[in-house]
Amino acid sequence: MAHKIGIIGFGKIAQDQHLPNIKANPDFELVAVASQRGLKPDEAKHAFQDYREMLKEVPEIEAVAICTPPQVRYQIAREALLAGRSVLLEKPPAATLSELYDLKLVADKVGRTVFTTWHAQYNKAVHEAKKALAGWEIKRLLVTWKEDVRHWHPGQEWIWQAGGFGVFDPGINALSIVTCIMPEPVFIQKADLQFPANRDAPIAANIQFSAAHGAADLQAVFDWRQTGPQTWDIEVETVQGLALALREGGTKLEIGGKLMVDEPSEEYAGIYQSFDTLLNERRSDVDDAPFRLVADAFMIGRRVQVEAFED
Amino acid sequence: MAHKIGIIGFGKIAQDQHLPNIKANPDFELVAVASQRGLKPDEAKHAFQDYREMLKEVPEIEAVAICTPPQVRYQIAREALLAGRSVLLEKPPAATLSELYDLKLVADKVGRTVFTTWHAQYNKAVHEAKKALAGWEIKRLLVTWKEDVRHWHPGQEWIWQAGGFGVFDPGINALSIVTCIMPEPVFIQKADLQFPANRDAPIAANIQFSAAHGAADLQAVFDWRQTGPQTWDIEVETVQGLALALREGGTKLEIGGKLMVDEPSEEYAGIYQSFDTLLNERRSDVDDAPFRLVADAFMIGRRVQVEAFED
Repeated sequence: MAHKIGIIGFGKIAQDQHLPNIKANPDFELVAVASQRGLKPDEAKHAFQDYREMLKEVPEIEAVAICTPPQVRYQIAREALLAGRSVLLEKPPAATLSELYDLKLVADKVGRTVFTTWHAQYNKAVHEAKKALAGWEIKRLLVTWKEDVRHWHPGQEWIWQAGGFGVFDPGINALSIVTCIMPEPVFIQKADLQFPANRDAPIAANIQFSAAHGAADLQAVFDWRQTGPQTWDIEVETVQGLALALREGGTKLEIGGKLMVDEPSEEYAGIYQSFDTLLNERRSDVDDAPFRLVADAFMIGRRVQVEAFED
Repeated sequence: MAHKIGIIGFGKIAQDQHLPNIKANPDFELVAVASQRGLKPDEAKHAFQDYREMLKEVPEIEAVAICTPPQVRYQIAREALLAGRSVLLEKPPAATLSELYDLKLVADKVGRTVFTTWHAQYNKAVHEAKKALAGWEIKRLLVTWKEDVRHWHPGQEWIWQAGGFGVFDPGINALSIVTCIMPEPVFIQKADLQFPANRDAPIAANIQFSAAHGAADLQAVFDWRQTGPQTWDIEVETVQGLALALREGGTKLEIGGKLMVDEPSEEYAGIYQSFDTLLNERRSDVDDAPFRLVADAFMIGRRVQVEAFED
């Protein structure tokens, strides 16, 4: 029997990714959508403006995918869990780490599934990179995540507000790949966070990581001011000489300079396959490692003021 | 048999609190001290400059109390655990949340105890406040933590550096009481962090919390610029009308305006009683809730520049 699912928050990511991937997966059946604008896609039997009404009026909903902005996710997820529904969370899974921690407690208490999705982890190239690095010692890591915020987030005021994460909004995708593929955990050792004079979130960041073992050179550079070609690269070198690179956001894998994987992104197909498994096995998957690195960077990072940014 | 213990890092807190409380507790025997200056109190048989040597040269050490500055705690704690020793961590337990998370994994893997100590939680007044609030719904919380940094931290440069926590160094004591006594978790909803123009850590902070239930008024005010009388107060009011106040850092408890508990601080005696229990039961106690709130405040807080601060 397919899992009957509702979507809460029906913006761009829900329309572009969640809707088609739920539709394409026979293990799920979309039964309702809740969105403040009351949008109703043809695929859903029911549509609501208020998610509370949806949870009440459509008892057959087993799970909800929460695709709202992060600021309101905790409250919605908590109410859904307490109403006996399992929950899939878009990234980042909540506004703060403490909210996410509490959702796990609530889910365990009511015996439902909570699933933090980090979409960038679901590409085949990332999976193969993880396998290739397993058991090796890392000598060098360089994450380069440079994109044009004007192109990707035109006019989005909330990303520039305190709590909007700034360049860590795309940067957390890179960090979610790092925490996935690295054979040992990395920690924020030092960070420079560059805040435009007129904004409350960073436009760029330089991060230096440490690892438990040895004197590795582990760096990340995030920049939202990149015009022209965009860069989403992760390069890794092991002590033993293996050199590996993930390019184009984790869709391409090179090992020793040779292209090994080059497949179109299937991120959300993988997410819904995993969600099906978790629901069937009545398990949760709460991975807060990427989110923790972001909080650590803000906590110990040095703030540097840079030129004002106008959208 | 008493637990044989070593102290790593022998600054003010180790000398004022750990040393006398280990000495006063028959369940512990101090056998060694490691400090960069090679200090040797009469109570310890052995003294070392290098903690690695201590761990190697004194095999009977069962546990270590790590009292160094937080920046180096992770590396020391990890090596101690891998050398088969249990670990007590002064507050804050590590430089970042990710380091603390990893220590728990390592401790579980090697079957040793790791214990995060939040000394402010160990006063009788705090214990009684927790009991009095259990099961009630909170309407109002006001934390006022105002002290004179010149008096308490004269010339300590590291507290003003990025990662030095600034006013959150005392503030985390207040937060550790809040997470201990509140019947439901609180979350950072909004924070203003006031950075002096010439410093990389906040000198003051205004925090607004949220809770899962209802429209409670939950606030904290931290300020390091308080001359004259110092204030370390936590006032709580329940929906049902119970009014409770912890004063003087959690040593005094008033309920309904009546003084119920007024006992001198016995914080570190309680810490070593708990550590004895954990060691005997081969359990860990890793409470990251206060540390998570600090990271959340830095992550979603708004930075405001204030007047330069000269020590």
